[in-house]
Amino acid sequence: MSDKKVFIMDLDGVLTNGCFLYDANGKAYKQFGPDDADALKLIKDDVDLVFVSADHRGFPISEKRINDMGYQLNLVKTSERLQWIKDRYDLKNVIYMGDSFVDVPILKEVGCAIVPNDGFWFAKQFADYVTVYDGGKRAVADAVFYIAIKFLGKDEYDLMNIKKGN
Amino acid sequence: MSDKKVFIMDLDGVLTNGCFLYDANGKAYKQFGPDDADALKLIKDDVDLVFVSADHRGFPISEKRINDMGYQLNLVKTSERLQWIKDRYDLKNVIYMGDSFVDVPILKEVGCAIVPNDGFWFAKQFADYVTVYDGGKRAVADAVFYIAIKFLGKDEYDLMNIKKGN
Amino acid sequence: MSDKKVFIMDLDGVLTNGCFLYDANGKAYKQFGPDDADALKLIKDDVDLVFVSADHRGFPISEKRINDMGYQLNLVKTSERLQWIKDRYDLKNVIYMGDSFVDVPILKEVGCAIVPNDGFWFAKQFADYVTVYDGGKRAVADAVFYIAIKFLGKDEYDLMNIKKGN
Amino acid sequence: MSDKKVFIMDLDGVLTNGCFLYDANGKAYKQFGPDDADALKLIKDDVDLVFVSADHRGFPISEKRINDMGYQLNLVKTSERLQWIKDRYDLKNVIYMGDSFVDVPILKEVGCAIVPNDGFWFAKQFADYVTVYDGGKRAVADAVFYIAIKFLGKDEYDLMNIKKGN
Repeated sequence: MSDKKVFIMDLDGVLTNGCFLYDANGKAYKQFGPDDADALKLIKDDVDLVFVSADHRGFPISEKRINDMGYQLNLVKTSERLQWIKDRYDLKNVIYMGDSFVDVPILKEVGCAIVPNDGFWFAKQFADYVTVYDGGKRAVADAVFYIAIKFLGKDEYDLMNIKKGN
Repeated sequence: MSDKKVFIMDLDGVLTNGCFLYDANGKAYKQFGPDDADALKLIKDDVDLVFVSADHRGFPISEKRINDMGYQLNLVKTSERLQWIKDRYDLKNVIYMGDSFVDVPILKEVGCAIVPNDGFWFAKQFADYVTVYDGGKRAVADAVFYIAIKFLGKDEYDLMNIKKGN
Repeated sequence: MSDKKVFIMDLDGVLTNGCFLYDANGKAYKQFGPDDADALKLIKDDVDLVFVSADHRGFPISEKRINDMGYQLNLVKTSERLQWIKDRYDLKNVIYMGDSFVDVPILKEVGCAIVPNDGFWFAKQFADYVTVYDGGKRAVADAVFYIAIKFLGKDEYDLMNIKKGN
Repeated sequence: MSDKKVFIMDLDGVLTNGCFLYDANGKAYKQFGPDDADALKLIKDDVDLVFVSADHRGFPISEKRINDMGYQLNLVKTSERLQWIKDRYDLKNVIYMGDSFVDVPILKEVGCAIVPNDGFWFAKQFADYVTVYDGGKRAVADAVFYIAIKFLGKDEYDLMNIKKGN
């Protein structure tokens, strides 16, 4: 286990708005949003990026999006997720982002807990940082800028290689 | 009739945002949201869970989702719903959740009336509890935590078997 | 021309949220919402209900929904709409509901102008009533209760035949 | 290069809400909204209208909508966009509208920078004008009225040929 930080994101409600469209055949569509993919590129060399989902029914949808972004998606049940994380990472290096009350046992234990602005109230009580934006509406992008300043010592100008002033 | 509480949920506007997508062939999709299915699992042994809908056109969509959650959906017209409930349950044990003015006659009579945050104003006037969240955006999940504390004597830690403190 | 009031509704942004889903083949879906169809039933014997749309591309979608609700939809260009209304109704009996700046010339002239809460600011300046809710999220339902109290002398209890008190 | 103003719009998050629906085959739908197409018609003779997008995966969807509106869409990577604009227009005549932190290098340099109300916070810091509305919910329409008053000397009545007063 290295000392590198790992940013573990629960998919639904974090990279999506948590909602899904159903028709008579089942789960058909999920809604993703702006800026998250672009923001993750800014830190991917400095932070390990890990994506998890407990939604087996919507997994092909979620996986397609994460693959299109250039990453892999792990199907991990909520009840087994804390152990799954412990087996792979040192909890003090884990930045975990989740939106639900089922994430509480994980949010309690990790080094840094992030919850989207529209996350469930019980989850938000354990957040080190609540994002400015809702899940699927730039919540991950905002988390990236938080991670950059807190763990990488880079502000938004540094991260994007933009000169301050005119 | 037992003394067990029964939680009767109107589907549209409670488990969904009340909206639906149309194309030239008719009603095509409904939008469901996060946390509701997971939250209902937490009380299903202590409270009977009943799902009703008056939407015959969207019934195959609604039924597919409720079946995927592991429950049955009942097609019951709004005008006949209060009698349908009376025939099956003791009203004082009924917790009813609805979002519309058409639910008012039921909300007035049941033991406990719950309305989502974005429910119609005339419905909200008869609510014992207005949820923190909108329909299809964790309204049912929030109602579950309300029911747990009010009728089961369990707070969010008890309900999820989470230890308080660190 | 009778003295009966006529409630003319622009479809997009009033009965929908004004948005539409596109794929590579064009306009695919529109989003309708809760309570509007049920509310219109409450006044249809006392007020003429008229539906208009200027969206030729999405017309088959819009028409399908209005037909499913039991009414007809009229395709009327915005630029010709005021004259179209004048040819058919006495403007002082017209209640017009629209959400856009293109509706301003009509909103200025009719007996009663209603704009959804999320209507364009230039339209809202000419509203006799701005609904509590956004278009496609109960805006028409709220307008119906406004029309009932203002023009039919019926409050929400009268309109729904509900007894006040317990 | 003429002295005519050019209004360059980034597509996603400006003409759409920035979100997109995914299924297991990839990006399926984008959501466009009301008033933007109608508003752009009001200034198209006085201002050049240019549409750009960096989303290659969703390009066929975006292009279909822009073509339906009667314009062309340019696929231009974000990293190359500032140079692309400089090669074609005098920056002091450019009105640029974007919603993302990736637009910051452009927003910093152009004559007039517009950001939708729900744009990313880092982008909003460089805006000459933040629209009243969110992207895909009349943000462009609102920008048009801002451009008309600021650069064309026309208020909303002039722009629509509507007489003030009754």
